[in-house]
Amino acid sequence: RIHLDYWSFPHASPGIGFFEHSDPGDADFGADPEDAFRFRRIRLEMRGDILETMNYRLQIDFAAPGVGEMKDVWVGFKELPGNQDLRIGNQKRPLGLDHLNSSRFNVFLERPFVIETFNSDARRLGITMYGNNSDDSLGWAYGVYNLENIKSDGEYRGDSLQLSGNARLFGSPWYDQTSGGRGYWHWGIAGMVARPDGDSGPVDENSNEARFNTRPEARSESSWLDTGRIAGAEWYEILGFESIVNVGPVQVTGEYQLNWVQRDNTGPDLFYHGAYIYVGYFLTGEHIPYNRGSGTIGRVKPFENFFLVDRCFGGHGTGWGAWQVAARYSYLDVSDADVLGGVGHSITGALNWHWTAYSKLQMNAIYGEIDEHAAVGGFTEGDYFIFGARVAIDF
Amino acid sequence: RIHLDYWSFPHASPGIGFFEHSDPGDADFGADPEDAFRFRRIRLEMRGDILETMNYRLQIDFAAPGVGEMKDVWVGFKELPGNQDLRIGNQKRPLGLDHLNSSRFNVFLERPFVIETFNSDARRLGITMYGNNSDDSLGWAYGVYNLENIKSDGEYRGDSLQLSGNARLFGSPWYDQTSGGRGYWHWGIAGMVARPDGDSGPVDENSNEARFNTRPEARSESSWLDTGRIAGAEWYEILGFESIVNVGPVQVTGEYQLNWVQRDNTGPDLFYHGAYIYVGYFLTGEHIPYNRGSGTIGRVKPFENFFLVDRCFGGHGTGWGAWQVAARYSYLDVSDADVLGGVGHSITGALNWHWTAYSKLQMNAIYGEIDEHAAVGGFTEGDYFIFGARVAIDF
Amino acid sequence: RIHLDYWSFPHASPGIGFFEHSDPGDADFGADPEDAFRFRRIRLEMRGDILETMNYRLQIDFAAPGVGEMKDVWVGFKELPGNQDLRIGNQKRPLGLDHLNSSRFNVFLERPFVIETFNSDARRLGITMYGNNSDDSLGWAYGVYNLENIKSDGEYRGDSLQLSGNARLFGSPWYDQTSGGRGYWHWGIAGMVARPDGDSGPVDENSNEARFNTRPEARSESSWLDTGRIAGAEWYEILGFESIVNVGPVQVTGEYQLNWVQRDNTGPDLFYHGAYIYVGYFLTGEHIPYNRGSGTIGRVKPFENFFLVDRCFGGHGTGWGAWQVAARYSYLDVSDADVLGGVGHSITGALNWHWTAYSKLQMNAIYGEIDEHAAVGGFTEGDYFIFGARVAIDF
Repeated sequence: RIHLDYWSFPHASPGIGFFEHSDPGDADFGADPEDAFRFRRIRLEMRGDILETMNYRLQIDFAAPGVGEMKDVWVGFKELPGNQDLRIGNQKRPLGLDHLNSSRFNVFLERPFVIETFNSDARRLGITMYGNNSDDSLGWAYGVYNLENIKSDGEYRGDSLQLSGNARLFGSPWYDQTSGGRGYWHWGIAGMVARPDGDSGPVDENSNEARFNTRPEARSESSWLDTGRIAGAEWYEILGFESIVNVGPVQVTGEYQLNWVQRDNTGPDLFYHGAYIYVGYFLTGEHIPYNRGSGTIGRVKPFENFFLVDRCFGGHGTGWGAWQVAARYSYLDVSDADVLGGVGHSITGALNWHWTAYSKLQMNAIYGEIDEHAAVGGFTEGDYFIFGARVAIDF
Repeated sequence: RIHLDYWSFPHASPGIGFFEHSDPGDADFGADPEDAFRFRRIRLEMRGDILETMNYRLQIDFAAPGVGEMKDVWVGFKELPGNQDLRIGNQKRPLGLDHLNSSRFNVFLERPFVIETFNSDARRLGITMYGNNSDDSLGWAYGVYNLENIKSDGEYRGDSLQLSGNARLFGSPWYDQTSGGRGYWHWGIAGMVARPDGDSGPVDENSNEARFNTRPEARSESSWLDTGRIAGAEWYEILGFESIVNVGPVQVTGEYQLNWVQRDNTGPDLFYHGAYIYVGYFLTGEHIPYNRGSGTIGRVKPFENFFLVDRCFGGHGTGWGAWQVAARYSYLDVSDADVLGGVGHSITGALNWHWTAYSKLQMNAIYGEIDEHAAVGGFTEGDYFIFGARVAIDF
Repeated sequence: RIHLDYWSFPHASPGIGFFEHSDPGDADFGADPEDAFRFRRIRLEMRGDILETMNYRLQIDFAAPGVGEMKDVWVGFKELPGNQDLRIGNQKRPLGLDHLNSSRFNVFLERPFVIETFNSDARRLGITMYGNNSDDSLGWAYGVYNLENIKSDGEYRGDSLQLSGNARLFGSPWYDQTSGGRGYWHWGIAGMVARPDGDSGPVDENSNEARFNTRPEARSESSWLDTGRIAGAEWYEILGFESIVNVGPVQVTGEYQLNWVQRDNTGPDLFYHGAYIYVGYFLTGEHIPYNRGSGTIGRVKPFENFFLVDRCFGGHGTGWGAWQVAARYSYLDVSDADVLGGVGHSITGALNWHWTAYSKLQMNAIYGEIDEHAAVGGFTEGDYFIFGARVAIDF
């Protein structure tokens, strides 16, 4: 998997510069976001079975080759009673839809505010049981996870284990087998109960994992919406709802998530929430497939691949691939009481050109506003326009 | 190869906290060891032949994906006269048995004190000749190595080459072919002569490699037994003895190693030594195979794999894998004259559940004592209880 | 690909110590270069096709496993009209011959002064069109690239894009098909126009990429010839000429490159240039193959591989591989006006022992002089003798 990005920031109001470069000690304090070319993903992967009853996956990302990052690294038991599989290791924790979709298949370049904020980077060290009923019309996943992201050091060290319990139940009551899955309705509900270490201090190896932050649905340098580590956080609970309706080339998808944070006497309890909805349409008539087993979307197969070659007998041969347009509205509120992470609104337009089932060019144009943010350089709000493009292949 | 660990430190006397967090400038000076979940090994590997007469191995560990570590990276010539092979590159230097055993096959989670101390991390850049007599009843390995561990930077730079010469001779005078190797006696003797740079200063690129240290046979953060870099060290010589007696499901293995260090007029010569012995027993009757060519133990194959699956015709199918219990006593003395690295005793109980030949769950319970340690925070001794568990697969 | 090096510096005049260790704040300021054993290249690689019309290459180097480096990471479209291929991603920018030759095939251990200086590390993020005429007697490559080397972080961030346009045209008017390419003449001409950000300051994410530097055709720690980042540089243009004449076992290869740098009113414009020429000869009669499609040299195949094995019926079997000698003269002048990067002359003798087509031992002896260097520790010149050896395999 190779994803190569270009990100441009043609407009950013002054406040955005302070959210991007927020350290008063730096020379670039308050400077505008700068454009970037970057590899977003470069993954080496191995997967396979261990005899008949076990399997594994090992995936390391070298988009920044100087510092690799752990992705899926797990060991599994297959075909357990109840049509279930068990996986132990670093893996996506079940919460919401968009993060469980592979980055290879998602309609937009970056995930919505609420998804990145409440399930940041998705993968954690833990143990998950996956299951389905006999006709795959219903599925579930539940497990226990450590809250710390160990993508760089492969280790959580700390006496406060900072665990979460997660569960997701989903179904596809309508799935049109006859047309090969061109029509379906997916629903899902997920929950997470987490026990962060809000009191961790300099004697502890671990940090307080009660923090909710996200970039502006684009690869800026910093998180423009950010609660910081919430001192005194003792518990938080997230509840999420998801739905996909797909009718041939048209798909409408939305999610809503709520997050309650309890603190010790450091401050009052907090409530955060966010949502998104998108509509996608294939100009060339393809559809977004659905995987009933995992409750996620799958690989788009163009009716005709993109090619432009010399023919042996003279002249050129051409094909035009699959073309998809999409629009997304996204909302996040992580400002409550004394913790002012900001409130964000964002609208994204997308144009996806699928060259083949394994390669595509994606383009996003994003307009967004942030307000109710804790003051940085005197600014509590800002608005921005961002353009992003990606060449994406997998193999 | 994926090894995923859990380490817990339910008991540690006050001194242990100071050996674990020994820097008076840190906020956690003297704090108790903290529990950890961590990947111990995640390895990407290539190996193969170059035409008929050469071979190679390339192995990088990404357990902490942010900083890869070099493991076996060598180029070899095969089938040389005298039934020998030559390997050039980063490889295990011959000294002792337990470090030459693959971490995939070892009976205990971590290697004994004396093995880790006198042959820390085992692999060094060097050149080794491996050979066997015609019926494999006798084998040898000898070579020259750089003393610095180049696992992170792939480079030794320094005018003082800091080399060692190592050699190991081993045999298996009794090996019961009829039973497929369920009975055997292995003996071995190894030696190492090393020339560290005890006078390296700030003008030199290299550091003094005369240091002997080890963790408590568990993945603590720090080395609890540690001589530090021994100033003025000019030479050291290690002699090691090893033995395995295996009778069906029972194995008794032990090693003893002696280490003499000579210094310039910085201080008197030093003598260190250590030993271990373990007994293992398969409740389910399997045995630990032996590789006569390399003089190391091999892969355990359960009589019946572990599985728990739904049967097509109803009911569950089950298998219980192989179960092994083992106990180890370990001893190390790296305190002599003015260099007080500590004296350690350790007892480990092990329970190994082999799911298949390629996957297992290992559990260790460790009780140990350290004394004669240079005072840290006023403490020269301590005792501890540690519990460790590992899910291990290879492929 | 595994390359394992030994580098020794038996002679270095006092000035060389200051070029090697040039920081007055360091304890080793002015100290002699120190010898080194090091892995020069350890590469993991994947390459393949995406259906019929696309391809990709993914190559990461772990010679220093703690910090991986990006090499070729690109996505391509094949068989475009005009007999052309398009590649997007991190790839070698077309300029000169020696850097486009694979490190697996080059005759000397390290590339000549002028090649490393004007096309440092060669690979950049960009887009290249490769093409050939119908009988491969003519070829071309042209493209646009970012100037920053993103080998470690996979990202260029900065509003000044710092681009270059590169183009190379080459031909092989004489290529002796009958003898399998034992005789040929290759010529090439290449140009590069670059727009560095000579005014980048602390507010910018990016650094000024107008810098020309190189090691002494050996793996010293530092660049002994180095202009530093040239303040105020606005543009630079490079022109390069290349030629190979090969007659059976003899090859004569040379290149000449000129570099004009324009500055704003920081200082006057600058002119740099350099050249090299080498002669190689196979004592055993083989030849260096030539790839007409890419205009670069290829893999040497020994008439007889090197081996030394026991024969089944007694006695040894032996083969002696291919033996090649070569000599190179190299020159670089990066001192002009107030920017005194130094003037270097270097003579290298090489002995290459090809064990097989995929493995070899290379040895270089290098004598060189540097003068007109900006004073470091009071020295503006120096001379040195270096010895290097490499075991190189690929697979």
